[in-house]
Amino acid sequence: MDEGFAPYGGDEALARLLAAAGSPYGTAEVRALVKGVLAAPPAIPATAWTVLVAPDPAPELVQQLMALAAQLRATMPVASFPPGAAADRIARLRAELARQGVDGFLVPRADEHQGEYVPASGQRLAWLTGFTGSAGLAVVLAGRAAIFVDGRYTLQARDQVDAGLYALRHLTEQPATEWISANLPQGAALGYDPWLHTPGEVERYRTAAERAGGTLRALATNPIDAVWSDRPPAPLAPVLLHALRFSGKGAEEKRREVAASLAKDALDAAVLTSPDSIAWLLNIRGGDVPHTPLPLSFAILHADASVDLFIDRRKLVPGLAAALGSGVHIAPPDALAPALDALKDERVLADPAISAAWVFDRLTQAGARIHRAPDPCQLPKACKNPVELNGTRAAHIRDGAALTRFLAWLAQAAPQGGLGEIAVSDRLEQFRSGSEHFRDLSFPTISGAGPNGAIVHYHATPASERKLEPGTLYLVDSGAQYLDGTTDVTRTVAIGQPSPEMRDRFTRVLKGHIALALTRFPKGTTGSQLDALARRALWERGLDYDHGTGHGVGSYLGVHEGPQRISKLPSAQALLPGMIVSNEPGYYKTGAYGIRIENLVVVTPAPEAGGERELYGFETITLAPIDRACIDAALLDAHERAWLDDYHATVRSTLTPLVDAGTAAWLAAATQPLTA
Amino acid sequence: MDEGFAPYGGDEALARLLAAAGSPYGTAEVRALVKGVLAAPPAIPATAWTVLVAPDPAPELVQQLMALAAQLRATMPVASFPPGAAADRIARLRAELARQGVDGFLVPRADEHQGEYVPASGQRLAWLTGFTGSAGLAVVLAGRAAIFVDGRYTLQARDQVDAGLYALRHLTEQPATEWISANLPQGAALGYDPWLHTPGEVERYRTAAERAGGTLRALATNPIDAVWSDRPPAPLAPVLLHALRFSGKGAEEKRREVAASLAKDALDAAVLTSPDSIAWLLNIRGGDVPHTPLPLSFAILHADASVDLFIDRRKLVPGLAAALGSGVHIAPPDALAPALDALKDERVLADPAISAAWVFDRLTQAGARIHRAPDPCQLPKACKNPVELNGTRAAHIRDGAALTRFLAWLAQAAPQGGLGEIAVSDRLEQFRSGSEHFRDLSFPTISGAGPNGAIVHYHATPASERKLEPGTLYLVDSGAQYLDGTTDVTRTVAIGQPSPEMRDRFTRVLKGHIALALTRFPKGTTGSQLDALARRALWERGLDYDHGTGHGVGSYLGVHEGPQRISKLPSAQALLPGMIVSNEPGYYKTGAYGIRIENLVVVTPAPEAGGERELYGFETITLAPIDRACIDAALLDAHERAWLDDYHATVRSTLTPLVDAGTAAWLAAATQPLTA
Repeated sequence: MDEGFAPYGGDEALARLLAAAGSPYGTAEVRALVKGVLAAPPAIPATAWTVLVAPDPAPELVQQLMALAAQLRATMPVASFPPGAAADRIARLRAELARQGVDGFLVPRADEHQGEYVPASGQRLAWLTGFTGSAGLAVVLAGRAAIFVDGRYTLQARDQVDAGLYALRHLTEQPATEWISANLPQGAALGYDPWLHTPGEVERYRTAAERAGGTLRALATNPIDAVWSDRPPAPLAPVLLHALRFSGKGAEEKRREVAASLAKDALDAAVLTSPDSIAWLLNIRGGDVPHTPLPLSFAILHADASVDLFIDRRKLVPGLAAALGSGVHIAPPDALAPALDALKDERVLADPAISAAWVFDRLTQAGARIHRAPDPCQLPKACKNPVELNGTRAAHIRDGAALTRFLAWLAQAAPQGGLGEIAVSDRLEQFRSGSEHFRDLSFPTISGAGPNGAIVHYHATPASERKLEPGTLYLVDSGAQYLDGTTDVTRTVAIGQPSPEMRDRFTRVLKGHIALALTRFPKGTTGSQLDALARRALWERGLDYDHGTGHGVGSYLGVHEGPQRISKLPSAQALLPGMIVSNEPGYYKTGAYGIRIENLVVVTPAPEAGGERELYGFETITLAPIDRACIDAALLDAHERAWLDDYHATVRSTLTPLVDAGTAAWLAAATQPLTA
Repeated sequence: MDEGFAPYGGDEALARLLAAAGSPYGTAEVRALVKGVLAAPPAIPATAWTVLVAPDPAPELVQQLMALAAQLRATMPVASFPPGAAADRIARLRAELARQGVDGFLVPRADEHQGEYVPASGQRLAWLTGFTGSAGLAVVLAGRAAIFVDGRYTLQARDQVDAGLYALRHLTEQPATEWISANLPQGAALGYDPWLHTPGEVERYRTAAERAGGTLRALATNPIDAVWSDRPPAPLAPVLLHALRFSGKGAEEKRREVAASLAKDALDAAVLTSPDSIAWLLNIRGGDVPHTPLPLSFAILHADASVDLFIDRRKLVPGLAAALGSGVHIAPPDALAPALDALKDERVLADPAISAAWVFDRLTQAGARIHRAPDPCQLPKACKNPVELNGTRAAHIRDGAALTRFLAWLAQAAPQGGLGEIAVSDRLEQFRSGSEHFRDLSFPTISGAGPNGAIVHYHATPASERKLEPGTLYLVDSGAQYLDGTTDVTRTVAIGQPSPEMRDRFTRVLKGHIALALTRFPKGTTGSQLDALARRALWERGLDYDHGTGHGVGSYLGVHEGPQRISKLPSAQALLPGMIVSNEPGYYKTGAYGIRIENLVVVTPAPEAGGERELYGFETITLAPIDRACIDAALLDAHERAWLDDYHATVRSTLTPLVDAGTAAWLAAATQPLTA
């Protein structure tokens, strides 16, 4: 059979193949299904979505489906929204607002799940304004509009957004609430989509609108959806079981345990709106958003351990529904509303920090007794079981070997000059993607040379990228999704000779990193309490960094997860054994260089003989050398030097067997003791 | 004229004297006034309450009033509630509950102001159960009752409470909510007084009652007040102006500034229920509760900077109402309810953390739009102005001289043996009370010898006190209220030779104390972030202490104030210049010894040349030697030794001119450099 590309043979031929394969779908339905598949990000490696059409598709059917997909892809709108047409788009929105009888509308970046990644169909802010950053909000009034983005996105927003249509404001320093209070006309009604905001956000906007003498009004239909004519469909990436050898605990056991925690609080049900909670609870994984293997869905967990899963059934691979078992009832997404109505008089948990105001409004109207509390899956998900921990350790060894091969390559290639940020990060992806169980990057690689390294959430583009030049620092923050674990690691390396100031700053960042890595703390301690340890060496010189020190990391799930974190932000969440967090202090000199040293660590019991308290500490699981050329050893005390030498010895002994001879030789030199 | 004690000459004579003095009161009214005065704690030195009767009382009238007071004091019930009569009291309460149609009642320790100190008239928990500790709750049902106290009060509660009437439970480990859920009968109504709980507490109890299938019901009349036949009247300690030379800012300016902060948030008014906020705002001080110069009162601050002050006018000294000015409208306490009703349709701030649920219920019924936010006086009160800071520095010098005279005396007297905890703390009070501007202790002195030092909130009684014996540690935590500042200091001293373990633990506590004293941190840092610095040296050995590291301290106000603190508890409140906090790490070995080293510190700018961030640090203002005999100098690094030697040099040079020759000689030895 010809392995080359066959053109699409037409609907009649496809219909025949579908019938032969026992597919439940006709050609129109398949066309819609394929559009949904194409609305999901491309998977690496490609998951066989063709099984969604028929459980065991013949090669000819597969070929025809691929051909159809290629044809449809060519006709689908590209998810880019040129500023040129933004005037037309805002005009259509304003006409719709007039039609719905409101004087303005809030357009957040969030979608219905309030998550970090948003599918193409939820990119309302990007569609309207052209702005594609990961955080932001537009407020559109009849006569004026503004977009609010944070410091990382000021330049990008200036590029992407038509300044004639939107005033550009700083998200936290010139907050939207103040702008609303100053600009909403007296008596005006500001509309919002209750699906896209948490209840706390709604209250803040309501106060702002009332301050202006106006009102805030929930809209039943999102006015952008009403006028977004070529809006992509909801993504339909295949949903698969996450095998027990990776998850470590069966879904039925998880359901029973979380349900027991509900029953203990005399609760009848919990509404789950975070796809990562549902993925963890049911041991399923998908691919509806970039870099995180999430199937977008909603669920209700009942106190009897049964689950109503609201999901587009078309994306479940054959056999999945059966594998989920009789305790999981699958229903279409639009069955969520009547299911909430049916919770009348029940005590229902919903999480106001991560669930949409719509959920609370609906439960209130239904007469449910709402119990506001954290999503009950978040904490058990964060405390990894031994199978997950062993998996993530194994993933980190493979990931470290890939990163180390990259660093050895860089050490040899960079001095020759001419390397650009994008080519370098492509090379790193290449090293990683050959590893066992590799599925995807866990986030877009941050590859910052010189001054670009000082941009904390930098994303290299052909227009922005720099060459790696002698006398500069290169910062690379990257990670991957493996079936057995999620990685996230940052290394900062000197290209040529670093300056004394660079070495001073790097060493202070390293001192903070080591202080955390070495600390032991009593049971009950939160990440907020430990954060200062990572900053103290910088504070002494009047320096600091404007990001958290550590975020939670999932197990083949989100590279950012809660509730654990290490941050100056207040938190009542104790660090518990099995939690994975990053340890990533940094220092950024605008226009000059950026430094960050990031390893992932696991919270682990660390008993002390003769001690009175149960102590925990951190097990460092990331394995890659830290650039000794950047270290001023005179600034390190004996404990700090010992930690670094021990760490490097572990890196060397663990990774040497996994790398080629050239890399091994480089690694041996890179991990020499400081004192040698 | 005879200076001796003259007997009360009878109502007719008093009436004549009152008329002659132009008093507005008749004898019956004076009798009620004097009872109110007697219901306040005795002031040190006695404030001339007699001016409340007539502005310029003749000596004969003063004498008659004192005689009347002596007579009334002898007939007033002593505030002690013997367990023997507790059965009768709970029976009367249960009868009243039946009369009001409820099946149970919550009896918290809090009064209507939710403060730390409660006047005699608010001691409902003590009246009912006999328990006099500073925190606790009783739940009384028809068939059973329980009292909930925390670990510091377990033994005391066992002594004071009739175990046949009340099950004794741990306040946090066996919380009342669980007990209610388990014991409230299906369908039963549990009553509560909405004046005595915050809205958050009410919600927790409501959930607990509903879990049991019962309900929670607000009662319009507190059933204890209905059956407490000999209940003391509300206290009537004289309310005085706090002079501008101590407060540093006029009340009118304060009112304008806080009102401007309300207007900025488009608020019309704020309800103030914390007497310390009102005392600060209006520059008034009183004496209604022990150890804190508070006039109990409520207030409403309006956006136009006017204040409605709800207070018993009888306790205002002559001229005070006029001095408060036309912007302060004085009304009786029972005018608060209609005043809240008049806030209909206004945007009104109320603080759910410190104000009673009653306030929120009333505002809601009135149709006010409630803005839940922190009491707007708390933050400006916490940031002391330069006059307050200079005052508190001066107070700390006088206080340090008194404490140092005490320590010198103790060093000489203790080895002779036989000293008891109470005699020792009486001696300390004697040293302090002679100081300029001294008004009162700022809290009951904690004077703990040997094992008693390990009881964090120890209060010596004749039954509990121990002798100070060789080979033990003695811990003394004490402070005073001076017109120019409030002090709070803890020293731990060795009686004879301390053991190596005691010296190890003492030195680790000292390391934590010094780490905080030396730390510099960027603007925006909270006390939660710094707390771990004080614990780290203990954590390393598996040790810790179960209390906060630092609390805010007022300026001739509460020795405990917010919103600042240094604690493992989450806090979003940055440490701001002018805030006073304690620095008091400790270590406690149950049954053996306790260690605490406490100084007060002021948050102060601490710039770093070449730094990029605005840095703050701590100025230590407490002055008294730290016992060098307890220090293992080998555990201190060079920075720590330098801090201690510098501190001791400051203590010596500041206090030597203020003490007698014998004390000066002792002080010179006690403050020798460690390295000498």
